[in-house]
Amino acid sequence: MTIRLGMVGGGEGAFIGAVHRIAARMDGHYTLVAGALSSDAARAASSAAALGIAPERAYADFREMATAEAARADGIEAVAIVTPNHLHFDVAEAFLKAGIHVICDKPLTTSLEKAKALEALVEETGLVFALTHNYAGYPMVRQARQMVREGQLGAIRVVVAEYAQDWLAERVEDTGNKQAGWRTDPAQSGPGGAIGDIGTHAYQLACYVSGLDFEVSAAELHSFVSGRKLDDNAFITLRAGAARGSLWCSQVASGNENALTLRVYGEKGGLAFRQENPNELWFTPLGEPARKITRMGAGAGPVAARVSRVPAGHPEGYLEGFANIYEEAARAIRAHRDGTPPDPGVDFPGIADGVAGVAFIEAAVRLSRERA
Amino acid sequence: MTIRLGMVGGGEGAFIGAVHRIAARMDGHYTLVAGALSSDAARAASSAAALGIAPERAYADFREMATAEAARADGIEAVAIVTPNHLHFDVAEAFLKAGIHVICDKPLTTSLEKAKALEALVEETGLVFALTHNYAGYPMVRQARQMVREGQLGAIRVVVAEYAQDWLAERVEDTGNKQAGWRTDPAQSGPGGAIGDIGTHAYQLACYVSGLDFEVSAAELHSFVSGRKLDDNAFITLRAGAARGSLWCSQVASGNENALTLRVYGEKGGLAFRQENPNELWFTPLGEPARKITRMGAGAGPVAARVSRVPAGHPEGYLEGFANIYEEAARAIRAHRDGTPPDPGVDFPGIADGVAGVAFIEAAVRLSRERA
Amino acid sequence: MTIRLGMVGGGEGAFIGAVHRIAARMDGHYTLVAGALSSDAARAASSAAALGIAPERAYADFREMATAEAARADGIEAVAIVTPNHLHFDVAEAFLKAGIHVICDKPLTTSLEKAKALEALVEETGLVFALTHNYAGYPMVRQARQMVREGQLGAIRVVVAEYAQDWLAERVEDTGNKQAGWRTDPAQSGPGGAIGDIGTHAYQLACYVSGLDFEVSAAELHSFVSGRKLDDNAFITLRAGAARGSLWCSQVASGNENALTLRVYGEKGGLAFRQENPNELWFTPLGEPARKITRMGAGAGPVAARVSRVPAGHPEGYLEGFANIYEEAARAIRAHRDGTPPDPGVDFPGIADGVAGVAFIEAAVRLSRERA
Amino acid sequence: MTIRLGMVGGGEGAFIGAVHRIAARMDGHYTLVAGALSSDAARAASSAAALGIAPERAYADFREMATAEAARADGIEAVAIVTPNHLHFDVAEAFLKAGIHVICDKPLTTSLEKAKALEALVEETGLVFALTHNYAGYPMVRQARQMVREGQLGAIRVVVAEYAQDWLAERVEDTGNKQAGWRTDPAQSGPGGAIGDIGTHAYQLACYVSGLDFEVSAAELHSFVSGRKLDDNAFITLRAGAARGSLWCSQVASGNENALTLRVYGEKGGLAFRQENPNELWFTPLGEPARKITRMGAGAGPVAARVSRVPAGHPEGYLEGFANIYEEAARAIRAHRDGTPPDPGVDFPGIADGVAGVAFIEAAVRLSRERA
Repeated sequence: MTIRLGMVGGGEGAFIGAVHRIAARMDGHYTLVAGALSSDAARAASSAAALGIAPERAYADFREMATAEAARADGIEAVAIVTPNHLHFDVAEAFLKAGIHVICDKPLTTSLEKAKALEALVEETGLVFALTHNYAGYPMVRQARQMVREGQLGAIRVVVAEYAQDWLAERVEDTGNKQAGWRTDPAQSGPGGAIGDIGTHAYQLACYVSGLDFEVSAAELHSFVSGRKLDDNAFITLRAGAARGSLWCSQVASGNENALTLRVYGEKGGLAFRQENPNELWFTPLGEPARKITRMGAGAGPVAARVSRVPAGHPEGYLEGFANIYEEAARAIRAHRDGTPPDPGVDFPGIADGVAGVAFIEAAVRLSRERA
Repeated sequence: MTIRLGMVGGGEGAFIGAVHRIAARMDGHYTLVAGALSSDAARAASSAAALGIAPERAYADFREMATAEAARADGIEAVAIVTPNHLHFDVAEAFLKAGIHVICDKPLTTSLEKAKALEALVEETGLVFALTHNYAGYPMVRQARQMVREGQLGAIRVVVAEYAQDWLAERVEDTGNKQAGWRTDPAQSGPGGAIGDIGTHAYQLACYVSGLDFEVSAAELHSFVSGRKLDDNAFITLRAGAARGSLWCSQVASGNENALTLRVYGEKGGLAFRQENPNELWFTPLGEPARKITRMGAGAGPVAARVSRVPAGHPEGYLEGFANIYEEAARAIRAHRDGTPPDPGVDFPGIADGVAGVAFIEAAVRLSRERA
Repeated sequence: MTIRLGMVGGGEGAFIGAVHRIAARMDGHYTLVAGALSSDAARAASSAAALGIAPERAYADFREMATAEAARADGIEAVAIVTPNHLHFDVAEAFLKAGIHVICDKPLTTSLEKAKALEALVEETGLVFALTHNYAGYPMVRQARQMVREGQLGAIRVVVAEYAQDWLAERVEDTGNKQAGWRTDPAQSGPGGAIGDIGTHAYQLACYVSGLDFEVSAAELHSFVSGRKLDDNAFITLRAGAARGSLWCSQVASGNENALTLRVYGEKGGLAFRQENPNELWFTPLGEPARKITRMGAGAGPVAARVSRVPAGHPEGYLEGFANIYEEAARAIRAHRDGTPPDPGVDFPGIADGVAGVAFIEAAVRLSRERA
Repeated sequence: MTIRLGMVGGGEGAFIGAVHRIAARMDGHYTLVAGALSSDAARAASSAAALGIAPERAYADFREMATAEAARADGIEAVAIVTPNHLHFDVAEAFLKAGIHVICDKPLTTSLEKAKALEALVEETGLVFALTHNYAGYPMVRQARQMVREGQLGAIRVVVAEYAQDWLAERVEDTGNKQAGWRTDPAQSGPGGAIGDIGTHAYQLACYVSGLDFEVSAAELHSFVSGRKLDDNAFITLRAGAARGSLWCSQVASGNENALTLRVYGEKGGLAFRQENPNELWFTPLGEPARKITRMGAGAGPVAARVSRVPAGHPEGYLEGFANIYEEAARAIRAHRDGTPPDPGVDFPGIADGVAGVAFIEAAVRLSRERA
């Protein structure tokens, strides 16, 4: 039986809500049955209707939704939170307290204090909490992480992470673009601009693959676009024990769409991954020719196959990677439903990634200010 | 309301059936409610159960299914045919005669005679017939076709199409691999080996994008693997009026997974597309720098956007392309249901592509034999 | 002591003459001391002066040059022939008869009859005859050939060769472009257009690397540009024993500069080479990840190192590849001078490649006409 | 008449000396007539003999060479300095004082103090001083610089420079590798390891193309290989007015050969260059498709053509780029010889680049220490 899913945010015109819905639908694990898709009652209702949600389960208020759904026999088992960042905490808290699992967009919260409070609540309730650092859902990212774990790179020395875009190279926030509007507004986005929106993805990916907990050792945040309050470009230096790293995120780098890349170098070899072509992973064992490992192809193992649907050479993409987070979360939710231990291979970003991400944002903002 | 869908073939262990199901599910247009998933009754039942199909709608015989579903008030409106090639005709005929729309895998039939018979039946019934030449569902393929139509390349001169794989480089058919087994068996596959399985895709793509009806002018089919009865490599030369083309398909080209590529050159410019990285299209106007057009990026137009789900730089893949065929077919099926004319932009491969593909196979086989 | 070199053709404004001169100079093996750089006496003199050739060794007539140089104690030991194709035979014959080694541009002659006559003369005189199929000078081409020889690909099955350009997509020959003028004129170029100018390079490369003597089994030559007498696009099918191949050459494929590529597939693996990035060779052993072998990098052997100058990651290019032909020829010329056997590793295209290339042109032209 | 050239360093077994000699020879501007190729007299003599240098002009001592050559009527006009870094200053000083032009390898000196002293001497003597930041000789680097100058990118915001290698990932300096030996020895290399050897190249390239004088704002230098005294990896943050930049250099990044790359982003567009494929330059005007500009191809202008030898699609490489520095220096030397003003387009890295490079090294080392 599929998991009954609700959604907060994601009304007509929103971007990431639609992505979550496809991700939830792709593998047949979830059925969307309730939503507070907008805080505007009319828009909430029409958005819900368009999605086939019954009118009585189309809410304008997420707190009302949490209470009402918790009270129904056929109430939702999980909620997807796809609002701007500043609402993540309140919504997540409401549903967790109502006993409902949470699948939440990133970054977790707009302050480390709230992130830790949420972490405590997750631990207390024992509910499933998935954070959609969707790039960690790519098969070849999992392959990379597995190769690091198996020691194929030896001790990690250097990590270079990038996430470059160009869509905010001009004052798009003045044109009525909703996505740009809230992302450049500290009240809705929190203290990080590019660093919160995309820097956290790159940071999570770097830590996820390398297995290291990187700390920010230096940061240079900058707003290039006149009048913009949050950073639109950041250079970060990272340390984790003997390892060193750098992270660049930018929303003003012309010609970059979603150029999220990760390179990891260890004593014995290196790995390179590029989000825009996610079916490939480059492995460069020291002193040997570079090898292109492909999803489901020679050299890729069961960890990647677990989250693959089609054979090598038939590309899977962003939505499949996103769906992998939903699928892994579904396994945990079902195990919870059944009262059984989850599959030991279950792997999705969670509350700890969320806390680390917010700590990363705060450290970067603080260190950059100190330097200026 | 979603379209009630049935499926013939695609039981446990099959590959393409699962792909069709994800494609049907991705955009929420279809609900799978019936199936003759296997000719083995037990396997048909267990496969159906695993997919949540009600037991009374799990059939072991496709003819019985056509009759029974046609008789139900809530009977299926469309059937997906995902059997080996030699069954396409009989299954399609049965459902068309029962008044049910058909979404069929390619190649259409194992003989041109049957292909034409089916074409007549489709015309006679006025039902929707979609052929899953799924690569024609890629947004950048549609972008390419549109650019040719708009005259951005001028008169087309040269088309170079390739589809190279390596999975049949050895006698895989002897290892119990079902996919390899029927594809190398003339009784199930028809007269074409590589040329039928993948050559028809490349041929359809070449015709679809260029807008030309290419004819085979020379063919060199070959079976490299000892004991194999069907071709596993073919070089084809094509003509269409003043245009010339070549097509290479191979299943023995080491290092190629699904290397389907298309290059089109006209008087004023060229285009290049590579299936394994389908979010890019190269446009090379004569005398100007090469331009990389990306899905939803600058330079891509509404024809590509129509079949896109996520912004530029977030890759869509094989399943999304496949789903685009299902989505376009859904529009035609709904228009038929509503008795309205379909959206003029509706675009999916159909019976004519199927007839052309079978004619291509027969011509290639005949010309190759004449030469040998 | 360097080899005293003369040149026929290559006066001011010519392209390939300058390339030969750099190639001859790069490694310090040759000194240019004489020339019949143009049949126009004034232009021959001024071109020679610009190159530091003494006035008395600047000839307007190549026959006079052959005679005069043969008579000098310090006469040239070798001549570089860089004229249009129709002059290759007469010039080569004159210098061979004068006892002077020849380094000649391709194609060898404008007829197979003359090619064979020249072959006989080379055998008779025992002189060095190098044909500048310069692409065979690339280190990674030699690496490829060596890997085939060592059996790393197993028995060769399929070869796909391409050489695509776009510079003749319009009627450039009418604009006063000398290069285009003689290449599109049968009287100067011989019976092949694209097929002679660039098809022969692709053909030589295919044979050189695969070790197979391919024969043309079908050909489709075409002139797309109105009024052009020679082919500007050709699709060729090749056979060599059990192996099959295809060759495409075009001068009207917009967006292609010098897109010479070679792919070779054997029972055990494949290789891919792309002239425009000649420091890489892709090796795809069946069932293993693709490997990128780089010049002087891991996986490249002594055969490539022999013709390399700088370490991996510092690209060598067209001129270095060309210079490798000159260097290898220099070894043969010096061995001849010393009366010693040449280094057994000496490897440069010679008279046999020339005869094969002209046979290829004639067969392609004949088979294409028969079909039309 | 060619320029009479001497060389200090570059005896048998050295790497960069051979490169300088090919670069000097390629375009016929220089003749090598004297050398102090080694401080070991026997090796100096045998190295000179192998290069055809007259015995009386084969010196074991560079000071003796400077004096003797200055005294000859046919003495050298220019000297190429290809010794380890710690000797650059003394050698350059000796030849400048002898009135001889200098072409010197980088980095200029091992201290900023000495760099400035040399700068003063160059100004005082008025002699030509070229520093072989050879990557600035690539045609597409010049194209990039020209496009920035013309304002095609608008005001520069972000520069990302990288130079990654892997050849020092292990303790190669212990294996008798001379190149590794001196480069990892502070006494010969100066205070910078990777940062001096390759970081200065990336820094010079970033400043050269962007037209900005970047200052180091933060630095994280690290030695990963046990016992190594100099950095083998460095992350640097840069500032120049409102622009921000980052620079990564590494000699321990497995799978990188000479991965020097530069990305420049301005208000109106971006550029990307990759040394390992130097015939391409990517231009990404904001809001338009990415364009691949090729050397001598459409979109490349006269500044690139000036330093090109062969048409588009025939790759030029490292040696040609290096030779471009020699060729440009030759123009300046000839102008000096003739007492005429040099061609206004003459462009080669000089003493100012050298001073800036040493300042860069010192700042990076200092800031990294402060942080540690």
